[in-house]
Amino acid sequence: MRMAVSLDGFTAGPEQSVKNPLGVRGMDLMQWVFPLKVWREQMGMKGGETNESSQVLEDATTGIGATIMGRNMFGGHPGPWDAGKPWNGWWGENPPYHHPVFVLTHHRREPLKMQGGTTFFFVTDGIESALDQARKAAGGKDITLAGGAKACQQYLKAGLVDELWLHISPVLLGRGERLFDGVEDLKGLRLERTVAAPDVTHLKFAHRSN
Amino acid sequence: MRMAVSLDGFTAGPEQSVKNPLGVRGMDLMQWVFPLKVWREQMGMKGGETNESSQVLEDATTGIGATIMGRNMFGGHPGPWDAGKPWNGWWGENPPYHHPVFVLTHHRREPLKMQGGTTFFFVTDGIESALDQARKAAGGKDITLAGGAKACQQYLKAGLVDELWLHISPVLLGRGERLFDGVEDLKGLRLERTVAAPDVTHLKFAHRSN
Repeated sequence: MRMAVSLDGFTAGPEQSVKNPLGVRGMDLMQWVFPLKVWREQMGMKGGETNESSQVLEDATTGIGATIMGRNMFGGHPGPWDAGKPWNGWWGENPPYHHPVFVLTHHRREPLKMQGGTTFFFVTDGIESALDQARKAAGGKDITLAGGAKACQQYLKAGLVDELWLHISPVLLGRGERLFDGVEDLKGLRLERTVAAPDVTHLKFAHRSN
Repeated sequence: MRMAVSLDGFTAGPEQSVKNPLGVRGMDLMQWVFPLKVWREQMGMKGGETNESSQVLEDATTGIGATIMGRNMFGGHPGPWDAGKPWNGWWGENPPYHHPVFVLTHHRREPLKMQGGTTFFFVTDGIESALDQARKAAGGKDITLAGGAKACQQYLKAGLVDELWLHISPVLLGRGERLFDGVEDLKGLRLERTVAAPDVTHLKFAHRSN
């Protein structure tokens, strides 16, 4: 699991919406990503720079066989699903996953096959079921938990997270969604690596045995 | 100013008291300090280790001509001052400051001279007055803001902090006192340096012009 977070512990600003999925000033948490060549290439853009963050981002997006995400990250209730037409996520016709994505939700729905290898599966029977399904789909590759905050909190509290990357931006948001709301400890995850980079500090947590 | 903080933004745990000034699990934020030789020497103890944190701690405690602290850090109302006898701080007869310390308070009190060069001055007319008095007393040396959270928030909101060291411990507290409560931005302070060390990540913020 990897999450962007501010110095005051927010992973998104207030007033999240279709037009502003990260909320007011939430994009301040992503400023370290946009200049990177490795990110621009994934988005089909040329140019960009290479710095200490490049390898972190590359490692985070390679070797992944399946993704799990919460309903708010896909766009749950209340949200764009209520807008009338079926909601197919924020990412357009060709989402950047290119593998099976398991969406935690309370609403049954048939799997949604997108372009480029991404299929969204909707899981209504809880986080452990989603993890089991993702594990089978991943075929031995890693599984990543993409967010949002509530899904991360559930997996952390259940002790089901093997590896946690925090991308700490040197900003305050003051208001918004707290990444660790209701999570009282890291269930044995320990700081394993620190990467200092422009406009961000990456902290990697893992179980000591890893 | 330098402050210890958890990943979820707490600088102290809940239920702070005379017996437990950092609150429940608040000492988890100081675990990186106790093994250090430089800290043990300051406390009159032998032994200890030297690692990436040593220089950070040494820099933070040398070249300081005056300290400012909030009333809760000294022990304000409600707190030990209400216990009947005059309260002289948490630190015993020889506090580890060895220079003038300006305590923000609502209660007038004569200066309190301790052993080893520490004198506590009680400032009732606000944070700017305390800063002025500290500046005069420091004689050209640096002034440090020792805490607690509320005093730090006041100085940050007023834009009066030139340099901020955050000592981020890789733990969650879940409850307690939030370092940045009510502070919505860093008033131009920017990440200048990152020091990775055992059980802590040090981030230094300063104004770009520094």
